[in-house]
Amino acid sequence: MTRLVIGIDVGGTGTKAALVDRSGELADRIERPTDPHAATKGIIAIAEELIAKAAGDEIAAIGVGAAGFVDHASGSVTFSPNVTYDDPQIAAAVEGRTGLPCVIENDANAAAWGERAFGVARGSDDIVMLTLGTGIGSGIVVDGHLVRGHSGAAAEAGHMVLDPAGRECTCGLRGCLEELAAGRAIERMARDAVVTDPASSILSFAGSPQDITAEHVARAARQLDETAREILRRAGRWLGIGLSNLVNLFDPDLLVLGGSVAKTGEPLLGPARDTLAAMTGAQRRRPQRLVLAQLEDAGIAGAAALAWEGVGG
Amino acid sequence: MTRLVIGIDVGGTGTKAALVDRSGELADRIERPTDPHAATKGIIAIAEELIAKAAGDEIAAIGVGAAGFVDHASGSVTFSPNVTYDDPQIAAAVEGRTGLPCVIENDANAAAWGERAFGVARGSDDIVMLTLGTGIGSGIVVDGHLVRGHSGAAAEAGHMVLDPAGRECTCGLRGCLEELAAGRAIERMARDAVVTDPASSILSFAGSPQDITAEHVARAARQLDETAREILRRAGRWLGIGLSNLVNLFDPDLLVLGGSVAKTGEPLLGPARDTLAAMTGAQRRRPQRLVLAQLEDAGIAGAAALAWEGVGG
Repeated sequence: MTRLVIGIDVGGTGTKAALVDRSGELADRIERPTDPHAATKGIIAIAEELIAKAAGDEIAAIGVGAAGFVDHASGSVTFSPNVTYDDPQIAAAVEGRTGLPCVIENDANAAAWGERAFGVARGSDDIVMLTLGTGIGSGIVVDGHLVRGHSGAAAEAGHMVLDPAGRECTCGLRGCLEELAAGRAIERMARDAVVTDPASSILSFAGSPQDITAEHVARAARQLDETAREILRRAGRWLGIGLSNLVNLFDPDLLVLGGSVAKTGEPLLGPARDTLAAMTGAQRRRPQRLVLAQLEDAGIAGAAALAWEGVGG
Repeated sequence: MTRLVIGIDVGGTGTKAALVDRSGELADRIERPTDPHAATKGIIAIAEELIAKAAGDEIAAIGVGAAGFVDHASGSVTFSPNVTYDDPQIAAAVEGRTGLPCVIENDANAAAWGERAFGVARGSDDIVMLTLGTGIGSGIVVDGHLVRGHSGAAAEAGHMVLDPAGRECTCGLRGCLEELAAGRAIERMARDAVVTDPASSILSFAGSPQDITAEHVARAARQLDETAREILRRAGRWLGIGLSNLVNLFDPDLLVLGGSVAKTGEPLLGPARDTLAAMTGAQRRRPQRLVLAQLEDAGIAGAAALAWEGVGG
């Protein structure tokens, strides 16, 4: 009989979960669509599904990484623009139904904690991790502790304003980092660009302007499509500026980039790294280590690590 | 015989120090010019001066807030653009000469810690404090701990870039918060403005454009000089944007503004507060508490508080 925990990662579209052992190894990974109106029910359902699968083993605890502002102490979600939790007291709801101790954490924090526990950031006590997807999530570790803030609403690096006269972000502000450097921004720039360059391979990959994804832009850039490369250069330079701000605020040991858009690779990351290095150099700061996230399921792993810590390892 | 500590605050121009009791009360406050080439000697000299004054009392420890990047663990300054420490191993040098335990901290961190120990931020575990002077210093407390960073170079909020196409800052970057919203920026804007408005009372207070200080602009604004008010509105709006970024990153319980430029009052702080409130509202974040620092000598008080903690209170 092995002792395991359940790690659950609740995103806007999917809820992913697995059984996780003390070394961070995942087993029985499953993924279900997130019910946008009843996410707490979904968390309980996926937990029960894994409890059933783990028949012969002992489940010690459940960790949940949840999209939204999380009040760690009370185990509740206080604000979540993209997901509706039918019961915001998630930890209590899960404990009530499963009888297992449950900890909850913001999903981007959980991802950073996962990379620190089991991934590329092992051994680092000062970490800034950005998860680049449609938007930008961030998890920040200072001196070995997650930065949660007074009401669980800290570490929203995606909503650092870098261009106050810029476009409106989904959050209500203008010129946020995520509106300049993440998937939504890349897609918007590409839709604009193919109007003047309809021969760009972005368009041949996507079929039509409204179907362009960041992945199409990444593929076109890898084939040296200059329109795609220029879009990613612009996004990458903004990303570098954002990273420089984070270095000035957190002086991390390690900067970690995760998420689907980070997989774009050099066409995006090269300009980000160059911009950051130029800014760091201008300030005569020490060079920064900028690395890619290592775990496929950092959110599950981090939620599991927090669950393990809650039961004393 | 009273038990006291010595608190020392080393700035670019002056080194201030006092004897401080457990409740944060200062006695025998003295101020000496900082020798820009031998600041460590100056720290030791001011400490010895206070030890002599304290003849009948017991000095338990010495706390130093020092301009520059501070490696807290080794008690040394690793980088300081404005002050040269003849011996960067400040704690060891002070301990060697005085026989007293010595802790050292970055000066802006010490100021935030002082407000938390004895001032307006008492009881708050999540604090962002900006000290607005010629530039902007910042001290940040997360969950009761100072944000120092991996190499003591964190909490440099003044060098958050908000306007990448903006003017070059003394740090080497462009469009830093402190180049948009602190004393140097206000003075520059005023020098430019009096060219087109030579009747502005900024100029009558200053005498000549090159002698304009932020204090002249503040005085003119209090007399409703529209040129001065517009300059402070611009600076205040940038300050509000900077504060919004800090709220997104740290979600503090309390934002504290200190330093000479914060004393400008409403002509600067009104637009900052309005901008922050509009941005916070747009994001549907909870309203933020923005308050003025309370201590005249937050840096001395904070260095003393750290000294007290080092000897177990």
